[in-house]
Amino acid sequence: LLLEAMPELRLDRTTMDWVVFAPSRARRPDEFRQAPRPAVEPSDAASCPFCPGNESRTPAEVYAIRDAKGTVPSDWKVRVIPNKFPALRIEESPVRVSDGSLFRRMGGCGAHEVIIESPDHHTTLLEQPVEHVELVLRAFRARYLDLMRDSRFQAIVLFKNQGEKAGTSLTHPHCQLVATPVVPRKLRLTYQVATDYFDAEGTCLYCVLRDEELAARDRMVVENDQFVAFVPYAAQMPFETWILPRAHQASFGRVEVASLRSLADILKKTLRALDCALDPWDYNLVVQSCARGDEDESYFLWHIEIFPRLTTPAGFELGSGMFINPVRPEEAAEFLRASLKDAGSRS
Amino acid sequence: LLLEAMPELRLDRTTMDWVVFAPSRARRPDEFRQAPRPAVEPSDAASCPFCPGNESRTPAEVYAIRDAKGTVPSDWKVRVIPNKFPALRIEESPVRVSDGSLFRRMGGCGAHEVIIESPDHHTTLLEQPVEHVELVLRAFRARYLDLMRDSRFQAIVLFKNQGEKAGTSLTHPHCQLVATPVVPRKLRLTYQVATDYFDAEGTCLYCVLRDEELAARDRMVVENDQFVAFVPYAAQMPFETWILPRAHQASFGRVEVASLRSLADILKKTLRALDCALDPWDYNLVVQSCARGDEDESYFLWHIEIFPRLTTPAGFELGSGMFINPVRPEEAAEFLRASLKDAGSRS
Repeated sequence: LLLEAMPELRLDRTTMDWVVFAPSRARRPDEFRQAPRPAVEPSDAASCPFCPGNESRTPAEVYAIRDAKGTVPSDWKVRVIPNKFPALRIEESPVRVSDGSLFRRMGGCGAHEVIIESPDHHTTLLEQPVEHVELVLRAFRARYLDLMRDSRFQAIVLFKNQGEKAGTSLTHPHCQLVATPVVPRKLRLTYQVATDYFDAEGTCLYCVLRDEELAARDRMVVENDQFVAFVPYAAQMPFETWILPRAHQASFGRVEVASLRSLADILKKTLRALDCALDPWDYNLVVQSCARGDEDESYFLWHIEIFPRLTTPAGFELGSGMFINPVRPEEAAEFLRASLKDAGSRS
Repeated sequence: LLLEAMPELRLDRTTMDWVVFAPSRARRPDEFRQAPRPAVEPSDAASCPFCPGNESRTPAEVYAIRDAKGTVPSDWKVRVIPNKFPALRIEESPVRVSDGSLFRRMGGCGAHEVIIESPDHHTTLLEQPVEHVELVLRAFRARYLDLMRDSRFQAIVLFKNQGEKAGTSLTHPHCQLVATPVVPRKLRLTYQVATDYFDAEGTCLYCVLRDEELAARDRMVVENDQFVAFVPYAAQMPFETWILPRAHQASFGRVEVASLRSLADILKKTLRALDCALDPWDYNLVVQSCARGDEDESYFLWHIEIFPRLTTPAGFELGSGMFINPVRPEEAAEFLRASLKDAGSRS
């Protein structure tokens, strides 16, 4: 039974994507017969494993931010724990197994952690003061750097699922992190496009893109001293918004601690603009960074992508990978700028 | 205003994906502020534009199957019309426009059609007799061949969205078809993987995959004289199922009319197995075929992919392109085989 529950990666030989099989996250096949279970949502602090006082109900803490003098276990501000139902586990082996057929697999080696953003069960990231958003980003950075010390991990995906349409059912505010033993195919292809551009032009594709968006102005949402946020020219989804550093930096792990306040500032402003424009809204947030070993390369710029989940990808998108976006980025950006102005004048 | 509403394709320079912007399908940005509108669902035949008698309320019919002697306009069995809110239009130009910046676009040239599967508003594809499923497939084939005569179209994506989770809100049973003026990047990469395999091995990757699945048997769902259906070894989603021809054939347009009954038979059986196993369930179905010009190539095999929408792709999937599947394909296939047996013994 334990063997059965071990996570595994399998190679889709037709796309060269590795797919994660995580039976510990499974419902049994016959459970799919019923209607989806209602979200398993702890109704109060007493039953929520992410709430202070319930620390013993989670796997052992791997990182936390407390007051300097804090000694009480429950007295944390941000807390990171291994996911109780991990997609990938540090114990598995990344050795490939094949019998000579097209069927190739490897152990589900990696890490899957939960960043609990706040002790407060009922808050959200965008309601936090900028000082607290900074602490969440500091936890991101610390875990990114620590996990990258394990040379088996090729890439780290930091992400947030906010709301049911974005794939979460837990209210207590949290982000997640998955360290993968392969560079995901989609990222590999993205790095290749950027490398080809660098080889041809001698400049970073993303830095040029940022500068051209700054020059065009009509898709800009907000900017500050160190970062810019815009709706990209070819956004796949309505109101998709990217945050890019003003300075070239391939890896999120290279961000200076001193820059995290500025990043927290623009993240909070961007989420606030979206929240004013789109109410209610669910969203995913992803930190895109370079693969292991390319931290000092010139071809890639780490950045944050925010995907409001307003439309449902359907057969055309699944089959072709092409997206249909009904909202022009210029209109979305204009609406976000106006929303931010309104929000500013109200506060 | 008309200019604004024209569909456009924009190149995402970071991934080389073309994204479709279709303002005629838009809600205005400020409409996103409200909760999603209830599905605009005609409640009866009188108000449904796809129902017989309402033919004048759709764009002009491009194809239909009627009885040989049929002369009454409403007396159709399958009917194909242009989508009233097209993502792409035959009138636009595929000429690329660029000002030397990274921002590159082209007209939203293409076709977007709706295949109305039945005059009956309340039926579904899997409830149709096999003879009628065959007519739907015959309409697929006829439109595929006709649209491929327009040399601007590089690929044709045939798909079905069944249910709200699969991205549709119209009940009247229908499929869709989009002809694109570019080979979608995802398909181009898939063809490249298959071409590389062919160059190395001298055989079609998909034919080998089909034969290895037939030999392994534990992921098989159902087979007949000309087709096989299985849950692929590295399925991205729970209960994802593929239907492959037994004989090599790169293009769906090359299917013999005489083979459509056999294809209808396995499609109906596969949908029935899934329907018995997963009730209720929404799904997408996609026909994967080769790009223009490769109809007689040896490297690719056209096939059908069925994606039950049981889980929600979240931040990890959006960010990395890697999928987490909680159900092992062997278990899913075993469950589907058992469901089909049950269904057979009941009928």
